Amino acid sequence: MKDKILTGVTTTGVPHLGNYVGAMLPAIKASKYENTESFFLIADYHSLVKNKEAKKIKDSTLEIAASWLAVGLDDNSLFYRQSDIPEIMELNWILSCSTAKGLMNRAHAYKSLINQNQDLDDRDVDKGINMGLYCYPILMAADILIFNANKIPVGKDQLQHIEMTRDIANRFNYHYGDIFELPQAILGDQNSIIPGIDGRKMSKSYSNTIPLFIDEKRLKKLVMRIKTDSKEPGEPKDYSSSNLFSIFKSFARQEEVSDYKEKFKNGISWGDAKNILFDHLNDHLKGYRENYNKIIRDKGCIENILKEGSIKAREISTKNLEKIRSAIGIKKIS
Amino acid sequence: MKDKILTGVTTTGVPHLGNYVGAMLPAIKASKYENTESFFLIADYHSLVKNKEAKKIKDSTLEIAASWLAVGLDDNSLFYRQSDIPEIMELNWILSCSTAKGLMNRAHAYKSLINQNQDLDDRDVDKGINMGLYCYPILMAADILIFNANKIPVGKDQLQHIEMTRDIANRFNYHYGDIFELPQAILGDQNSIIPGIDGRKMSKSYSNTIPLFIDEKRLKKLVMRIKTDSKEPGEPKDYSSSNLFSIFKSFARQEEVSDYKEKFKNGISWGDAKNILFDHLNDHLKGYRENYNKIIRDKGCIENILKEGSIKAREISTKNLEKIRSAIGIKKIS
Repeated sequence: MKDKILTGVTTTGVPHLGNYVGAMLPAIKASKYENTESFFLIADYHSLVKNKEAKKIKDSTLEIAASWLAVGLDDNSLFYRQSDIPEIMELNWILSCSTAKGLMNRAHAYKSLINQNQDLDDRDVDKGINMGLYCYPILMAADILIFNANKIPVGKDQLQHIEMTRDIANRFNYHYGDIFELPQAILGDQNSIIPGIDGRKMSKSYSNTIPLFIDEKRLKKLVMRIKTDSKEPGEPKDYSSSNLFSIFKSFARQEEVSDYKEKFKNGISWGDAKNILFDHLNDHLKGYRENYNKIIRDKGCIENILKEGSIKAREISTKNLEKIRSAIGIKKIS
Repeated sequence: MKDKILTGVTTTGVPHLGNYVGAMLPAIKASKYENTESFFLIADYHSLVKNKEAKKIKDSTLEIAASWLAVGLDDNSLFYRQSDIPEIMELNWILSCSTAKGLMNRAHAYKSLINQNQDLDDRDVDKGINMGLYCYPILMAADILIFNANKIPVGKDQLQHIEMTRDIANRFNYHYGDIFELPQAILGDQNSIIPGIDGRKMSKSYSNTIPLFIDEKRLKKLVMRIKTDSKEPGEPKDYSSSNLFSIFKSFARQEEVSDYKEKFKNGISWGDAKNILFDHLNDHLKGYRENYNKIIRDKGCIENILKEGSIKAREISTKNLEKIRSAIGIKKIS
């Protein structure tokens, strides 16, 4: 049996180097393995939980689709929007009926919000929380189970959601027989987390990112701002604690890394080290940047790719939903 | 503008006289008014909240569809299964993102379950509660709002759900502009509640019902068991407190009711009063019983009627969903 790898793509705008190294690159590599079938789901209906700006939702979908195509996602993979697969929404309801409310109460994202409300001494612990947020783990289970995907690459913060998907699938199977395969989480390599320009983990929430398709001039500016210590030129430098080095090694071959290391030991100036990193990044990203700028202009083409992806994905999802419906008794009378 | 009346039909098996008098008869009458459009939704996906038996879910849909057709629902109305309208499921998710969790916490059905858990001193107030039950008011809002139905006939116990639908629609409109019409509850006539054979309100949960399509012999048996007082033949009887009279008047014309009243005053024996009621009911129900027995055998025909209903209903729901999607930003890129 082929492995079915499902990657959820959140629509939070143009990705940065951290997204690329930590998620996009490994996912695209995996999609080219033999004996796997890869699903890339643009989670546009997820974004509705936090985002009430219609234009932003639409634009983010465009940007994120163009981004993945620019870095090499090809038609070996099924690339589609969540909102183009109505079977997900139907399964979402079906699974709700097999999900204990207590399970949702234990979701980290929900708990952290009620803790905030409690800290503010709010009488209503659920203040400001919408049902989309509370029910999201069920929708995510539906995203996965509708395709019986069995391998789910996730970050640590998403591990609980995969556990919940397994719980929900298990409970459903208990009632209705073995309909769902229990998916496994594939935890990303911790080495693939890179620092932002301030040295903390690169993340939009810290405003310390280097956007993936930024132009050459701005890329240089950001690289020059990456935090270093105050060692003088000529002084040997510790590569292992250097943000420059951490970023460099994620983009370089073994011998390039050894070479860079050597330069640190030999007391390269921070300015020169930054120039090397910039040149290296720029060489690596130039092609992607050009791809992105070309692709994003051809909206019709992106739309077609996603539409085609959804047609192929629905060949699977409609067949699976038929089986599920039959198991629960929602079927033709005659 | 035409009124759009939406009646939710729960799939809880063959209806009884109480259902007929209280819900079916008025709904079918209303569906024949001019300047109205009637929607009859078989809430099969609702039944999944409490029912995990596939066969029962399927059979109940068949029985309830045959029942409504037997008592005169015709193609003036849109008669369809909830599960045949995927737009409902999609709107269900969309509305979740515009529904405060606090609103769901206040639902009577949910509150009564947590009260039970609290009374049992259970540490987990949500014990045994599934997310289908908790989220059901949102699905019901989707049932209504996807068609912008504006008149919803309900019993008292359902009034809160219509209030919630209005709340959810309001909050959505606040963010996205005037997309939804706020529906009004149409409360059933309290006079149309009839007693069961034990004198309490006729209800499946009291096991005191007279099934609508029961055969003549069993109908007679049940009528003979209707509770009366112990007044002797010849003694004048109080019609206003009589269960026989309450049932009779729901099925009879004005002059027949006056005539029956007169007989009570003149001291008719309970046996004779029961015979009159039986004859009257039997005359009234004979045609329906024959219809039902004929219709239920032709499953293919029922399936076709429901399929046709869903095709017509989806002409409306797909158009409305398109508008809703556009408002929230879930739309084509190009």
